Amino acid sequence: MKLNLKSLKWSAGRPVAIIDEKLAEKYSIQVDDRVIIKSGKKNIIAVIDTASNLTKQNEIAVSKEILEKKFPKKVDVELAPKPESIFLIKKKIQGEELSQEELKTIMRDIASNALTESEIAYFISAVYISKTSLKESIKMTKALLETGKKLPLDSSKVADKHSIGGVPGRTTPIVVSICAAAGLIVPKTSSRAITSASGTADSMESICDVNFSIPEMVRIIKKTNACLVWGGSLNLAPADDKLIRVERLLNLDPEVQLLASIIAKKLSVNAKYIIIDIPYGKNAKVTKSKAKHLERRFKRIGNYFKVHLKCFTKKTEQPLGNGIGPVLEIQDVLKILRREKDAPSLLEKRSIELAACLLELTGKTKKGTGEELAKQILDSKLALKKFAQIVKAQNGDINKKFKSAKFKKILKSKTSGKVKEIKIKELNRIARIAGCPGDKNSGLYLHKHLNEKVKKLDPLLTIFSESKVELRDAINTYSKSQPIKIR
Amino acid sequence: MKLNLKSLKWSAGRPVAIIDEKLAEKYSIQVDDRVIIKSGKKNIIAVIDTASNLTKQNEIAVSKEILEKKFPKKVDVELAPKPESIFLIKKKIQGEELSQEELKTIMRDIASNALTESEIAYFISAVYISKTSLKESIKMTKALLETGKKLPLDSSKVADKHSIGGVPGRTTPIVVSICAAAGLIVPKTSSRAITSASGTADSMESICDVNFSIPEMVRIIKKTNACLVWGGSLNLAPADDKLIRVERLLNLDPEVQLLASIIAKKLSVNAKYIIIDIPYGKNAKVTKSKAKHLERRFKRIGNYFKVHLKCFTKKTEQPLGNGIGPVLEIQDVLKILRREKDAPSLLEKRSIELAACLLELTGKTKKGTGEELAKQILDSKLALKKFAQIVKAQNGDINKKFKSAKFKKILKSKTSGKVKEIKIKELNRIARIAGCPGDKNSGLYLHKHLNEKVKKLDPLLTIFSESKVELRDAINTYSKSQPIKIR
Repeated sequence: MKLNLKSLKWSAGRPVAIIDEKLAEKYSIQVDDRVIIKSGKKNIIAVIDTASNLTKQNEIAVSKEILEKKFPKKVDVELAPKPESIFLIKKKIQGEELSQEELKTIMRDIASNALTESEIAYFISAVYISKTSLKESIKMTKALLETGKKLPLDSSKVADKHSIGGVPGRTTPIVVSICAAAGLIVPKTSSRAITSASGTADSMESICDVNFSIPEMVRIIKKTNACLVWGGSLNLAPADDKLIRVERLLNLDPEVQLLASIIAKKLSVNAKYIIIDIPYGKNAKVTKSKAKHLERRFKRIGNYFKVHLKCFTKKTEQPLGNGIGPVLEIQDVLKILRREKDAPSLLEKRSIELAACLLELTGKTKKGTGEELAKQILDSKLALKKFAQIVKAQNGDINKKFKSAKFKKILKSKTSGKVKEIKIKELNRIARIAGCPGDKNSGLYLHKHLNEKVKKLDPLLTIFSESKVELRDAINTYSKSQPIKIR
Repeated sequence: MKLNLKSLKWSAGRPVAIIDEKLAEKYSIQVDDRVIIKSGKKNIIAVIDTASNLTKQNEIAVSKEILEKKFPKKVDVELAPKPESIFLIKKKIQGEELSQEELKTIMRDIASNALTESEIAYFISAVYISKTSLKESIKMTKALLETGKKLPLDSSKVADKHSIGGVPGRTTPIVVSICAAAGLIVPKTSSRAITSASGTADSMESICDVNFSIPEMVRIIKKTNACLVWGGSLNLAPADDKLIRVERLLNLDPEVQLLASIIAKKLSVNAKYIIIDIPYGKNAKVTKSKAKHLERRFKRIGNYFKVHLKCFTKKTEQPLGNGIGPVLEIQDVLKILRREKDAPSLLEKRSIELAACLLELTGKTKKGTGEELAKQILDSKLALKKFAQIVKAQNGDINKKFKSAKFKKILKSKTSGKVKEIKIKELNRIARIAGCPGDKNSGLYLHKHLNEKVKKLDPLLTIFSESKVELRDAINTYSKSQPIKIR
């Protein structure tokens, strides 16, 4: 049909077209159908949305992505054929295995926005429900790698760490600083918070920039041996970022995807030495047996791709630091690097253990001497110096003065005893209600850790927030959920 | 966070809110997340989309559905908790069976727009991949019924037919007219075309209205014993309509859903006697063994709900009528009802067989005499009279003069022989390219059926279109796909 183009005057991040719902009904076009908009040899595929009172029956309203094609006012619009991936996803749902080439086609279509969220959801659930095999994880890793960019770093000393997450505690900046100070190349890309109060990228953003291009990232690494940047805008594994977005709708974490996602990201920065941090326990993301299973799978995939990979699996039942929230966590990091007395000891210990693993794996030091070396680098403040260099290269300053959040409330113990349980998920929820991760200064300060003695009226938790309403909501959630058990 | 409301000035069919992508990134809000917009006691849940150049960092642009709540200019916006259905869908994906109450919760959330397309896709694939049981189909039927409306018809003579589709041929208006003329109550609701050239609702719309409310539908039935309306706007099974929309993305047809969808729709109009038309064969929707399997399942669900149900399974390898397209199909119907000599005989035969089934099932006539009675009603033109009444009650006129499409092309045989195969899917595709179902006069006229003798240059197919470009595209597709095989 011939329709007149109307400009929506905004960008949607991908080509979006809106037609009147009556017109859509007449032509059996439905929301999320793809149409091809064309004129002569120019054409573009857009996803349809419908509305009323926006366009006339002979109009199609389009986002800036479509206007950039400079079509004439009158265009031809018809239903577009479905991308090949649709048939492949259906095949997977029907229980067939996909070939390497087929998986790559799907990843390519996801990366190029050719698939809608619903179609990606179909793919994820098929991957989730079908029995997962190691072979599939390897195929998926390759498909993710081949559809993304690679960091042009050619060094045999590239090392990296990754945590499967689930437990607050900002080890990454400390581990990266220690290892880079020891001479390793650590091109660390991190994510932002998804369901937690802060991701490494959110925390780093409170003292420097984290949003860089690949050439800028290389420049920072050449200067400092390392970086601590946000992975989201780098396009290292663009399909993966979208898969994670759709998985998040149901908080699904299909194993094939989890393994492939992590390994592909490490391979895309050319890492030869990889530590995977897998905290487990009742309040963590995985159980012990799941952690051990993941460890076996990670190792075999690592072998396949010929990288040195080690998993650090440890029971972890509480936040490692005192702070929960972007600024509060970076303050913990700085206290440790500055060797201050009130630095959180669990976070320091875990950071040293992880750094030691990587120092031993890369052969920087002999087996059994990693912790000693890591501690030495910390104590000599070489790690602090390295962190200051990285932050400066990312246009920041470690001596930045932090403003405290506008409002705070100290929550005190109603009883005496010992801390018996800390519900991590509830703390994350309270921190988010208080404004994390959007308000960088918001968050929680945990005064007591597991097994510490508590007297009646001792402070347990301080909640920081930029808004009175949010502070009140956070306090209410604390009262209802009682995340810190004293007995 | 506090944001200023900005009006999008259009309706999206459900509450939609758009914020700037930078703001979304800052607060870890992603496309398709739900936010709760509130002020005092007023609140509404909306699905988030992001854009750039549409809103400022302190603004949220909202569709009319949200403006109708009359919020003040400044509103509180925060991430909304996920609806319970999300957890139930995850449970299903993890392989657990859902209870009656849980399925109902999901259907209610689908019906009320509380779930996004992606979340519905997760549900459908879980249903598709899990082993289907009769018990599940029954639970699903009940869940669909309980979340929809019911037709307030109290009669022991309510009869209905349904076809699983896949083969062009407009039997429904003929069967309904014959049965209603015989005294049965036939509250027929139909769909519009999904992948075919025309649905019964599209064809009927070429001579009368099809878009009615439930009270209007009852009024038409009281007047004429029957109706032929569009089911889409009646809300008889609102969740089902949305499930079908999402299934269509992958052309999935999970059996549980197929069975539940059809039975629920028949039960919602209070049908006591039901015929299910299941054409099978190489060019049809299902194979013979699948047809027989469906027949067994349909019968057992029918028994459970205490209705008289019969399946009509028959090998069907070609379009039954000559016309393919809204107007062309209704012209076939009128020729048969008017007893014209060039009426398509296959369509007439099948209509008589289906009507006979229903007349015998309801006890209107003895076993083995149904076809005779149906033919008699046709020959006496009582069926024509009944059809005229129904069309009139739906504000139409069977004597309407049809305009022919602006352009047409007669495609002739390049060889002599017999028609050996007619590719139904290809014909549907050509008809849609020619403008079906949006352009009512567009479509195909099939000059020859299977096993008919063909001489060189005999017309095989005429393509009708309102657009020269579309006609050319349709002819090209015909040339490439050669849908009519002569040997």
